[in-house]
Amino acid sequence: MRYSPLLTDLYELTMLAGYLEEGMAEKPAVFDLYFRTNPFEGGYAVFAGLETALDHLAGLRFSPEELAYLNNLGLFRPRFIEFLREFRFRGRVTAPPEGTVVFAHEPLLTVEGTLAEAQFVETLLLNTINFQTLIATKAARICHAAAGSDVVEFGLRRAQGPDGGLSASRAACVGGCRGTSNLLAGMLYGMPVRGTQAHSWIQAFPDELSAFRAYAVSFPDSTILLVDTYDTLKSGLPNALTVAAELRSRGRELRGIRIDSGDLAYLSRESRRMLDEAGFSAVRIVASNDLDEQVIESVRGEGGRVDIYGVGTKLVTCAGTGGGALGGVYKLVEIDGQPKMKLTSDIAKASLPGKKRVMRAVEPDGGFIQDLVCLESDTVPAGGTVYDPTNPLRHTIVPPGARLTELRSVVMEGGQRLEEREPLKIMAERCRKELDLLPAGCLRFVNPHRYKVSISDPLNSLRSTLIKQLESKGE
Amino acid sequence: MRYSPLLTDLYELTMLAGYLEEGMAEKPAVFDLYFRTNPFEGGYAVFAGLETALDHLAGLRFSPEELAYLNNLGLFRPRFIEFLREFRFRGRVTAPPEGTVVFAHEPLLTVEGTLAEAQFVETLLLNTINFQTLIATKAARICHAAAGSDVVEFGLRRAQGPDGGLSASRAACVGGCRGTSNLLAGMLYGMPVRGTQAHSWIQAFPDELSAFRAYAVSFPDSTILLVDTYDTLKSGLPNALTVAAELRSRGRELRGIRIDSGDLAYLSRESRRMLDEAGFSAVRIVASNDLDEQVIESVRGEGGRVDIYGVGTKLVTCAGTGGGALGGVYKLVEIDGQPKMKLTSDIAKASLPGKKRVMRAVEPDGGFIQDLVCLESDTVPAGGTVYDPTNPLRHTIVPPGARLTELRSVVMEGGQRLEEREPLKIMAERCRKELDLLPAGCLRFVNPHRYKVSISDPLNSLRSTLIKQLESKGE
Repeated sequence: MRYSPLLTDLYELTMLAGYLEEGMAEKPAVFDLYFRTNPFEGGYAVFAGLETALDHLAGLRFSPEELAYLNNLGLFRPRFIEFLREFRFRGRVTAPPEGTVVFAHEPLLTVEGTLAEAQFVETLLLNTINFQTLIATKAARICHAAAGSDVVEFGLRRAQGPDGGLSASRAACVGGCRGTSNLLAGMLYGMPVRGTQAHSWIQAFPDELSAFRAYAVSFPDSTILLVDTYDTLKSGLPNALTVAAELRSRGRELRGIRIDSGDLAYLSRESRRMLDEAGFSAVRIVASNDLDEQVIESVRGEGGRVDIYGVGTKLVTCAGTGGGALGGVYKLVEIDGQPKMKLTSDIAKASLPGKKRVMRAVEPDGGFIQDLVCLESDTVPAGGTVYDPTNPLRHTIVPPGARLTELRSVVMEGGQRLEEREPLKIMAERCRKELDLLPAGCLRFVNPHRYKVSISDPLNSLRSTLIKQLESKGE
Repeated sequence: MRYSPLLTDLYELTMLAGYLEEGMAEKPAVFDLYFRTNPFEGGYAVFAGLETALDHLAGLRFSPEELAYLNNLGLFRPRFIEFLREFRFRGRVTAPPEGTVVFAHEPLLTVEGTLAEAQFVETLLLNTINFQTLIATKAARICHAAAGSDVVEFGLRRAQGPDGGLSASRAACVGGCRGTSNLLAGMLYGMPVRGTQAHSWIQAFPDELSAFRAYAVSFPDSTILLVDTYDTLKSGLPNALTVAAELRSRGRELRGIRIDSGDLAYLSRESRRMLDEAGFSAVRIVASNDLDEQVIESVRGEGGRVDIYGVGTKLVTCAGTGGGALGGVYKLVEIDGQPKMKLTSDIAKASLPGKKRVMRAVEPDGGFIQDLVCLESDTVPAGGTVYDPTNPLRHTIVPPGARLTELRSVVMEGGQRLEEREPLKIMAERCRKELDLLPAGCLRFVNPHRYKVSISDPLNSLRSTLIKQLESKGE
């Protein structure tokens, strides 16, 4: 799919035109993309959207039609339109791989290039990384609540636009979902697709049993029956058992039943009992209906027997506490080799100046201890003092036995991708492993343990110096 | 833009294959699209997304690549793949025009066609209408709070995917926004585009004044200066006044200033005073930073002097109370000429059977009284008794003096659009006019007046009869 470079904010172009006028367009610049609060008031986020973003960066060019539109706006000089005709992204991108567990205040993407190209890609990068990281995080939370049962994404019909559905399916897979109902996501991303029938199928037949039978005839090896159109336990289950027996007499097996309303804990327990007593213990129980991590947790807490959770709206829109959007930002941190920062009255919102690295301090057994943001030239000594980025009066020590690993690597150089495309499965596997290595309590939904992200002593000093300089300028 | 027919749920295709096997694919069927609760716990919704949906319906066809993907899933028989090769939407669509004010429980779209085609388009229609109607409603609420000040949409960077941004820009315009930062929306939908510079522009220069001057040189006729990078009143305003005077000495005028943080009521009042005292009373004040209808209402309530509100994340994602997604559903209401309904334990969730019309009862002065859903063959007499669809024990009377107007018309016949494409401006105008005709209190944000939607006596009777039939079948 071609990405239109016009899918951006007008001000990216007015700034570009201005930099060109001022002779600043080619100055070397560095921008960081990061967020200031973990989504959902949770203990972590799952990084996603990188491949999508890199595809867009590599393919960035203006079509003649797009240039004509910009020209007709009457805002820009002809020289600028000519500049855009040859405009490409030829910069460097540093990032962790998708599926990495990340935290507030650490740079996720760092973009280096000319001021023109690095500034222009802001909106595109924010749109892609903000949304996919939000969804991957939500999916990871839901999969954690499901505690080993499969989670499948069914959200397209209430997603925010067609692509709100497509990107969401992709990111949900990074976060741990095992399949999607979205066929285009299946085709484009190689994801397993899932789905059987709606209530309208059941209603289109004279009665429920005929509807079940007809489906089993068409799809004898993949039948999952929707049992709640009339009455789950009095009508749906008995009819499903009839069809299960008929399939078995023809040498096939019913795959599952789906419950889409009512008390899912009670109905799934009763359904499990009825299926087992009738000799159909391999028939799986699918539950759906406005599920999220809290609902799933309570279904499990009450002894629900659900094998597969189908999640929709609440996953793909992330509505609810701390959801809806990830507040990622994209800040200039260096220009012409000079570190830059944005001063604000709230130190927690001040940016971290300069070109930086992100390190993860790891226990000998692999468990994560804390993350460290340092300047490119820094070495953080084990045993050294490091600082809370939101409150420099708070500091801690990197444990002497910790191993420091680099969280990110250069993934694009000169506008060219450096790495092979990774299957989503590998990303999902990475996510699952890293979540297991977090300190206990980080995965909790309410008041999670706050994983430490610290800044190095030299970075802390640089920031203090810049703050003093800016304040003394009276600005 | 081509819409892929794979952007749908797998079950739409498994059902289609099943209907084909059963010889039911060509049966005439009628589906209604409606929602059960007004979004945001508000008093109304603004219908949007129809043109997008009709474009998708008219262009619906499977490419060879898509057919090959489906074939490789191993789920479908070759006969079905051949059926899909020629599959088109050739049905009829009835709908109100976009920008119409609509309510819970009334059919918005009605789709008539073969069971195959009418079922298949479910996911596509829900995705498009749910999201755009949600956004148009949010935009109308925000514009109502702005009470005459302009509202501009800036949400792309935190929208739910690239198209989450694009559809949102379009629908925001239907709901009353006067412009967008999104260039692609500008090109595709002819919307006015807006935007000037980010904090990074200011930071890229040695000081704020140089940054302001440089922008004014590049865009002497459209400069809006971002004044809050360092200190709005102590640095931003004085520097903006300097540049305003310099522009004037060259025969130009500063267009505006933008405040993106802090106490917007206080800062806009003080800015207005400083601008006026310096003789720049035509300079407009733009405010942004996480705005929604509540924040705008409070800024106005405290005497804020804002001319243009820039709204972003909270508009395009609709996060917050009753937001995130519109819960529109798509239900089979007739097959083979027989009315159908879905029975549920909750009468408020039961569907309305049969092919229906939606009428609006209007005062002689044009004010809206209530909406009426009736069967196609019904005539609702003025003075007649009508029923609450969620509680048939509650009934009311259509005032004898009321004029009844039809809310919807046939907009697609045989898969062909019947009407000219409307400019978004006309839809926005319709929305504004209709909101003015609502009973007092419908526009309130908290505990709004509940506008009545009633069902006719024959429709109420039909539903009761069907409920009894379904219950006596023991289903």
